[in-house]
Amino acid sequence: MEDKLDELKARLVEYKNLESAAWVLSWDQQTYMPAGGAEARGRQVATLERLAHETLTDPAIGTLLDDLHPWAETLPYDSDDASLVRVTRREYERQARLPSEFVARLAAHQARSYAAWAEARPQNDFARVRPFLERTLDLSRELSEYYPGYEHIADPLIDRNDFGVKASTLRQLFAQLRNQLAPLVEAITAQPAPDDHFLRRSFPSEKQQAFFLDVVQAFGFDLNRGRQDVSPHPFTTNFSIDDVRFTVRFQEHDPKDALFSAFHEAGHAMYEQGIAQALEATTLAMGTSAGVHESQSRLWENRVGRSRPFWTHYYPKLQALFPAQLGDVALESFYRAVNKVERSLIRTDADEVTYGLHIILRFDLELRLLEGSLTVRDLPEAWREGMRATLGIVPPDDRDGVLQDVHWYAGCIGGHFQGYALGNLLGAQFYAAALQAHPEIPAEMEQGHFGTLHGWLKEQIYQHGSKYTTAELLERVTGSQLLVEPYIDYIKAKYGEIYQI
Amino acid sequence: MEDKLDELKARLVEYKNLESAAWVLSWDQQTYMPAGGAEARGRQVATLERLAHETLTDPAIGTLLDDLHPWAETLPYDSDDASLVRVTRREYERQARLPSEFVARLAAHQARSYAAWAEARPQNDFARVRPFLERTLDLSRELSEYYPGYEHIADPLIDRNDFGVKASTLRQLFAQLRNQLAPLVEAITAQPAPDDHFLRRSFPSEKQQAFFLDVVQAFGFDLNRGRQDVSPHPFTTNFSIDDVRFTVRFQEHDPKDALFSAFHEAGHAMYEQGIAQALEATTLAMGTSAGVHESQSRLWENRVGRSRPFWTHYYPKLQALFPAQLGDVALESFYRAVNKVERSLIRTDADEVTYGLHIILRFDLELRLLEGSLTVRDLPEAWREGMRATLGIVPPDDRDGVLQDVHWYAGCIGGHFQGYALGNLLGAQFYAAALQAHPEIPAEMEQGHFGTLHGWLKEQIYQHGSKYTTAELLERVTGSQLLVEPYIDYIKAKYGEIYQI
Repeated sequence: MEDKLDELKARLVEYKNLESAAWVLSWDQQTYMPAGGAEARGRQVATLERLAHETLTDPAIGTLLDDLHPWAETLPYDSDDASLVRVTRREYERQARLPSEFVARLAAHQARSYAAWAEARPQNDFARVRPFLERTLDLSRELSEYYPGYEHIADPLIDRNDFGVKASTLRQLFAQLRNQLAPLVEAITAQPAPDDHFLRRSFPSEKQQAFFLDVVQAFGFDLNRGRQDVSPHPFTTNFSIDDVRFTVRFQEHDPKDALFSAFHEAGHAMYEQGIAQALEATTLAMGTSAGVHESQSRLWENRVGRSRPFWTHYYPKLQALFPAQLGDVALESFYRAVNKVERSLIRTDADEVTYGLHIILRFDLELRLLEGSLTVRDLPEAWREGMRATLGIVPPDDRDGVLQDVHWYAGCIGGHFQGYALGNLLGAQFYAAALQAHPEIPAEMEQGHFGTLHGWLKEQIYQHGSKYTTAELLERVTGSQLLVEPYIDYIKAKYGEIYQI
Repeated sequence: MEDKLDELKARLVEYKNLESAAWVLSWDQQTYMPAGGAEARGRQVATLERLAHETLTDPAIGTLLDDLHPWAETLPYDSDDASLVRVTRREYERQARLPSEFVARLAAHQARSYAAWAEARPQNDFARVRPFLERTLDLSRELSEYYPGYEHIADPLIDRNDFGVKASTLRQLFAQLRNQLAPLVEAITAQPAPDDHFLRRSFPSEKQQAFFLDVVQAFGFDLNRGRQDVSPHPFTTNFSIDDVRFTVRFQEHDPKDALFSAFHEAGHAMYEQGIAQALEATTLAMGTSAGVHESQSRLWENRVGRSRPFWTHYYPKLQALFPAQLGDVALESFYRAVNKVERSLIRTDADEVTYGLHIILRFDLELRLLEGSLTVRDLPEAWREGMRATLGIVPPDDRDGVLQDVHWYAGCIGGHFQGYALGNLLGAQFYAAALQAHPEIPAEMEQGHFGTLHGWLKEQIYQHGSKYTTAELLERVTGSQLLVEPYIDYIKAKYGEIYQI
């Protein structure tokens, strides 16, 4: 069995080498690649994705997994080897349904669609990306059709990122969430809005960067094993446990964008950096699901980065960096400003209360596109209509409307957005468990120390990579199933205090 | 035949996709990759290089080439299709001698060796890289052994970059060159040295960059189809005809380093950008040899970038950017300073007269290492001894001695350096032909216009990619064989005037 396990691992190293190489090319496309490179990049990524897929779905791997299965069953469930066989088997079975030719076709299309989007968004030009998006919808449907027997056509797409989660479950969950959030937004926005005019002053990007790099390193992000760059849409990627990179975008007159994106992406990045070295170059060496990933990013962004203890320590440092911009602004005013709840246009900049509504809008539109009850042509109007119905405002253009998020333009339609909402819920449950284990966390934060929280997350979540499914991990760490209440309770408590409702 | 040609081309696209992906990973390693990424990068590049090699040496390609050969022979020699079959055949036969396993082993080693060098050079730590270099020497010898029947063990290594060139030819050529250059260096350095103390003032890198980006775009480098980054050793790479990148390194107190590196690398980059689009994603879509490549880089660096007409136009602009540093320096003083001939330590910064001697030193050491008459352990001392004998100075440390050039640490020992010396000779011959065709070139340069020169080079050299061998290209463009005289005549004329000897 040792030999077979070694052979499996050697094949997985090859798979990961190809997958990581594809990710380097994609990172480069989003950060540094000149516009002229887009055409070739499409075919280059397609070749790598096709070969990665062929490597993972080689029938020899199927045979090895069959041979190893009985032996792995005798090992402890959470041992590295048992987990490797179990998780690889699941991934193998999922991927083996897709023809490699389709994987290459999808990857080539996605690279080209991304390039079109990167040009179209600043120009507010939905017509430019419409044919790409129509093809993405066709390809997303085609992907689902390789998994016949689904309950909803979105399910196979969701399953890729959040194993086992179904559209029907999410619909119920989101209805519940919406019912809780909508009246809260009503109540809060009926109150006078916190003053945040000072956040529209000029904040040079180099200083924004100096600040957030200090912060994310204090969180635990290791710049010797990672880096930060700039891209049109913030993201995190990794090429090994020791090379994890995130991006931000800078807005001179809105420092919240880069700062909170950096905290958010650093949450993703620390998860990937914290995976046990023993899992390197295996199918286990990545975060287990979109939902758990977002629980980590949103935990660091919001539970830490938008908290009073955090700013008690860091606000004087921010003021020292920006004396002209913030010298006249008290901590409490700043705290209220970065937690201002408003009906706004941009998801990534949305406050914690309205954020879920942005997700629900996208999820609804995705399902309608996939079901065929909405066409891509009608999508911009449906977006505006959805914004009016969900958030009570209408974007003045497509740039800050249907074009704002990269996901549909660089990925599939379906499967991406649910992770953010699940992440909010999971994050609340994980953070509650962290506080229960270590009630000293907020006091430490007030001193600029995050070691206890980071250590606990590493121990409880990061190190395991993909060993456990979302449900298994949640049960292990919190002893509970997925719940809406901890998140809603947190939101009500925090914003009840800020807005005195 | 159409079908077979199409199949060959499709296979070559796959090959190029993998090769280009490997180059993206290598570019990333040299520019942005965090130190932690080195271990994984080695295995990732190795996988890509192995697969690229397997794709190119697939026996099916051999069969296709055999089938296409008689048909290709009926086509005009310089047609795209005849050239594709001819050049691919040559490359196939060369590559098919190497086991893919060796290619992967070499690539993995080179990536790790590069990482060690990048750390060791700033620390002046030859001991750190010595084991890597010893292994590189073993691998370089192993590579040559796959081509039994060579005249000199360096020949197969040289042949990879300069097809058909032999160590014995180079030895003769270099002896001739040395005999011409050594007395010139003697005579010049007996004269009073031009004053260049102002070049050691502080020149902020952002301004250096602004200047050279203006210049290289005026030369003809297209930033929509390329970019410039920073790396420990300047280089140029390309991922398609429309994505060609170069790097420089900045030294605040030595602006010559970045400026002339940028002109040099832009010469390489314009060659790659100027290849005919019809050759994209084939074996023809690259410069034909190291020698011709260096002829282009050194032509733009020296014949243009160190010329009086060039600085007549650009020096006032440079002064305007650096008024405190250069406001008190006359054009003629600056011109003499950037053409100062001196016995110096660093090859990339060497003047045109001593440059060849730096190459000859490296070439001699390579041959001795490969022959076994010099060990890696004794290499630093042999370097010092060679510098004393060749240039009359001794480096105070290994950083500016044996560690200065990346080539041995990221590539093979053997095959890299001859291209620079060949490039000087070829460049002189090409430039003489350009001046004969367009005597107006220097006058245009004085106006900051380079279109005639760039257009002529594109027409005569760039567009053809690898269609012609070095010898064929030289014959087509100049009607001559490789000659030392045009280069020596140029050097004597230019430096005779500057130094009045």
